[in-house]
Amino acid sequence: MRDQDTLHCGGAPPVLLASTSVSRRQLLAAAGINFEAVAPDVDEVAAKRELATANGRTLAVALADRKALAVSATRPGAVVVGGDQTLCCGDRLFDKPDGVDAARAQLCALRGRVHELQSAVSVARDGVVAWRHIASARLAMRPFSDDFLERYVTLSGDTLTTSVGAYRLEGPGAQLFERVDGDYFTILGLPLLPLLDWLRQTGVLRQ
Amino acid sequence: MRDQDTLHCGGAPPVLLASTSVSRRQLLAAAGINFEAVAPDVDEVAAKRELATANGRTLAVALADRKALAVSATRPGAVVVGGDQTLCCGDRLFDKPDGVDAARAQLCALRGRVHELQSAVSVARDGVVAWRHIASARLAMRPFSDDFLERYVTLSGDTLTTSVGAYRLEGPGAQLFERVDGDYFTILGLPLLPLLDWLRQTGVLRQ
Repeated sequence: MRDQDTLHCGGAPPVLLASTSVSRRQLLAAAGINFEAVAPDVDEVAAKRELATANGRTLAVALADRKALAVSATRPGAVVVGGDQTLCCGDRLFDKPDGVDAARAQLCALRGRVHELQSAVSVARDGVVAWRHIASARLAMRPFSDDFLERYVTLSGDTLTTSVGAYRLEGPGAQLFERVDGDYFTILGLPLLPLLDWLRQTGVLRQ
Repeated sequence: MRDQDTLHCGGAPPVLLASTSVSRRQLLAAAGINFEAVAPDVDEVAAKRELATANGRTLAVALADRKALAVSATRPGAVVVGGDQTLCCGDRLFDKPDGVDAARAQLCALRGRVHELQSAVSVARDGVVAWRHIASARLAMRPFSDDFLERYVTLSGDTLTTSVGAYRLEGPGAQLFERVDGDYFTILGLPLLPLLDWLRQTGVLRQ
């Protein structure tokens, strides 16, 4: 698409999304951002081991930074957006479940409790983090029955493993919750409004 | 779909959505509700004339009630969900714009100001309102340039006329805002979590 047909400034640098998250891609695309998604060469498992003592907030920021920096190193001049989300319930940090059984166990652990999501976004340019933002949301999962859980897991299938919470609030996952406090974009994994603001301040998007 | 493959209780009454709103249909469908959408036989223009002195809250509740009751009258036994949303900025109530020029004028009036959305949902059964809920959200529109506005209007086209705010926060409309306080479902026109809770309490959805 030509710049004059979009909400981008003419001659603005290309925007890259250093993430394979479907939610983040959909959010950015829906918001009218032209970007290319690039899988960052970051070993998340190794990074999490290295950052094992970090809290959810620190971990999300560190991973968002690393993703943005990894892609920025290969694409000089580009505006590279990295994002990460962590989920904390009590003292426990949760990871994306690696299968349906892990997702079921995770939903059981979150049932009837409040958990916190931390969503970090970092922007790197020419190998330097130029901006970052972190936002949080609190979600209260209702004490659903085992019968409900089995049906929910069957209905959702592999989509359960695509997010750190093993739910999709934008889908049947809404039936898991009794209360949600926080920005929807933050819940989906990308604090969108602050990012859009930064992209305007730096001449990527039109004012 | 058979009840045993869904999150509905076996033998639960049918759910009808008394609304032609695309957002409401998408929200309910995404949340895993099986329903039939029925256009309510309500003259909204006449109703708004009759309720001319009402504030945004009262008007939204009255219209949600009327939509639910209108469909309920024709479908005994069904659980009929009606919804309405009003937008208030200062002392002025806004209506869905009837064309692109009206949408542009409305966006100009909201630019650089905070406005309030009131989203009402009513459930009628056998000609009686059995439950209702109203929720509000506050949105701060940024002082975008005329150039941005023209491009946004061109990009959005007729989708501008589908909502009371002449924007879609779930689309490029996100670029219009500097701050959004309130539940995303409420902003899209349906306080979903309280409705799901009611549907569980009354045996329509599984606990």
